[in-house]
Amino acid sequence: MLGRASVVTVEEARRIFEGAFLMPSLAVEAVPITGALRRVLAGDVVSGVTLPAFFRSSMDGYAVRAKDTFGATDALPAYLAVTGEVLMGEEAVAALSKGQAMKISTGGMLPPGSDAVVMYEHSQTLPDGTLEVGRPVAPGENVVAPGEDVREGETLLTAGHRLRPQDLGALAGIGVLEVGVFKRPKVAVINTGNEIIDASLTPSPGQVRDVNSYNLAGLILQAGGEPVPMGIYKDDYDDIKKAVEGALDASDIVAITGGSSVGTRDLTAKVIDGLGGAGGGVLVHGVSVRPGKPVIIGLCRERPVFGLPGHPVAVTVSFELFIRPLIERLSGYVDRLKTSGIPPVRVVKARMARNYSSGPGREDHIRVALELKEGELWARPILGKSGLITTLVKADGAVVIPLAKQGLERGETVEVALFD
Amino acid sequence: MLGRASVVTVEEARRIFEGAFLMPSLAVEAVPITGALRRVLAGDVVSGVTLPAFFRSSMDGYAVRAKDTFGATDALPAYLAVTGEVLMGEEAVAALSKGQAMKISTGGMLPPGSDAVVMYEHSQTLPDGTLEVGRPVAPGENVVAPGEDVREGETLLTAGHRLRPQDLGALAGIGVLEVGVFKRPKVAVINTGNEIIDASLTPSPGQVRDVNSYNLAGLILQAGGEPVPMGIYKDDYDDIKKAVEGALDASDIVAITGGSSVGTRDLTAKVIDGLGGAGGGVLVHGVSVRPGKPVIIGLCRERPVFGLPGHPVAVTVSFELFIRPLIERLSGYVDRLKTSGIPPVRVVKARMARNYSSGPGREDHIRVALELKEGELWARPILGKSGLITTLVKADGAVVIPLAKQGLERGETVEVALFD
Repeated sequence: MLGRASVVTVEEARRIFEGAFLMPSLAVEAVPITGALRRVLAGDVVSGVTLPAFFRSSMDGYAVRAKDTFGATDALPAYLAVTGEVLMGEEAVAALSKGQAMKISTGGMLPPGSDAVVMYEHSQTLPDGTLEVGRPVAPGENVVAPGEDVREGETLLTAGHRLRPQDLGALAGIGVLEVGVFKRPKVAVINTGNEIIDASLTPSPGQVRDVNSYNLAGLILQAGGEPVPMGIYKDDYDDIKKAVEGALDASDIVAITGGSSVGTRDLTAKVIDGLGGAGGGVLVHGVSVRPGKPVIIGLCRERPVFGLPGHPVAVTVSFELFIRPLIERLSGYVDRLKTSGIPPVRVVKARMARNYSSGPGREDHIRVALELKEGELWARPILGKSGLITTLVKADGAVVIPLAKQGLERGETVEVALFD
Repeated sequence: MLGRASVVTVEEARRIFEGAFLMPSLAVEAVPITGALRRVLAGDVVSGVTLPAFFRSSMDGYAVRAKDTFGATDALPAYLAVTGEVLMGEEAVAALSKGQAMKISTGGMLPPGSDAVVMYEHSQTLPDGTLEVGRPVAPGENVVAPGEDVREGETLLTAGHRLRPQDLGALAGIGVLEVGVFKRPKVAVINTGNEIIDASLTPSPGQVRDVNSYNLAGLILQAGGEPVPMGIYKDDYDDIKKAVEGALDASDIVAITGGSSVGTRDLTAKVIDGLGGAGGGVLVHGVSVRPGKPVIIGLCRERPVFGLPGHPVAVTVSFELFIRPLIERLSGYVDRLKTSGIPPVRVVKARMARNYSSGPGREDHIRVALELKEGELWARPILGKSGLITTLVKADGAVVIPLAKQGLERGETVEVALFD
């Protein structure tokens, strides 16, 4: 058992965890691109083809030899013989010789000999079929050259990139219909507590329905992980130990919730220590954050195991502080904007709609609803004792009061991290 | 055929469409809450239970009668007889009488007769088992009262709300494990163009792989819709008409892509007019936006049908302007923040890294990559002829240059709508 002695700050808790956790190598799976939206690429994608593969018209008009139009004006137009039409999706039936033009549509393949396209708007056809061109085109004008989009051997996308709609389009364009992506990290959820019953049952006096499994499953999905529900367990050392052992076999991260009472917390800690292995066990027991102070962070058989407080709000705060970043890391995702130092987008500035007091020496996480008043955004704290799930339901986001700060004053500007 | 005469502004196009489109009644389906993340509630959820259902301790300590502690100080403590322990998930075996206390854990049910909880930290047990309380507690202190979280008959969530993790937790808490949600709007995607081949095939000269199906499917999913791929069709009136008829049977919105050439565009317009029905057909043919000018907006049998230009970038721009808002509306989603006038969060301010010229009389949509330099965010336009899918791949977001503005200058501050 390490670092157990006392409550530590969020920063210290992260540092202790980082010092003990060895990043595992990430598993990879192949998925069709139709199912790859938001999945994270496990390797660079290098194009095996050149796009476009041919000189392509970017306008409706006539393929010409640019040279034949040089010096053309409305007063002294160039006259070209239209020898035919390039059909979409086909090669031209013949090459273009001096003084000739061929009708072509946007996306059509330029006939050999041509090097530019005269737009319809800048030409007219005489009664005998001759094309009259009133202004010159430069070589390459209204033409997309081979490789302007992608060149063979070019890296189209890099490992760690999370696939967006346009990336799927580009992959299809180069004929890559299946990609290697990192497997989603699996997060096992174990619920403990003699008072907790399956949400489908009717509680007897003293019992409460399981809320945390559902809240956590949603948070895990949202973060890019895969929830693995392990069920509800009574406060019994052997039962919980068995559940954690099963969870370690089935997942990359284990979250044990419940245990709001001292006795249960000690049970969770004992199980984590029992299954710790070398360098493992409980690393952090208690973090100076409210709500969420009794959180336990440990390693069992080199996998991260979290003992979360039983309160739904504390579960959410602990998840956001410690588990979401870990899921993102284990998903292989490289957030280009974040690594470039660009601030997160789901944060808005607002002014506090009332005072909020916070004790010194702890990081306070409060839930707020947003309101627009006279063009200004206001954050109204959602009050209510911790442990109420509806404070989360009524809120639009959360505000963090840092360790060193003792509360917030009405009118003060804060950053609100919006719920997704 | 209505409104066909000329190119209209984005705003006019929206107004014309709104004037003709009748919002249909939305279909509803029941889903288990485990699969309901981000789904949109079809009706209000009213709680059938009160939470907590009983007076619940919010601390580890002793359940007491507050009156018995009045006036207690360290110098003159109150002495109480500990008559037992409240077990988690169970009712107390006996009620509390004057001068008595019972051990209780966080989440435990208060015994009848008690009305407050003394924290462990503020008490000590004497060798004979008597509890010494050094400070008074007020009635209700460290206790959550029935209904503090939710009251029976209270509306927990309202129709149009998109479910978040905490909402799923709250639903479980009140025993609602299945909810009625609006069906996801189905968007049929028809690809046309003699040059387009299935992305799994190897193109012959003049042919290109289908990019738009994949890009569009991703965009539709992202917007909360369900893509219905209808396949690739040659530029043939009867074939495309048959495809649109099939799509109208299978979906709520139809998107026809391809048709970058004048001939194909006319074909699409002809099909939409042919299937228009009363008040339907082509409503808008051409919008003053770049890229995306040749977009067609129509109604067939009262369903929205879009003729999108063939270029992937133009597809994305047209989708964002016209189809995404329509999918969101047909999904029943009421964005509380948006309707409160709170600006969208996926927009960041940045300074243009170079000049960009834009013609007058059209709305220009440009793609930009973001860079952080000396603490400032810069937007670098991704140049390249329209029709290149990689300009979208290399970009982090888009900037709109309004109709009235002729270009942007280096250093000018713009709003970047980030890609998701």
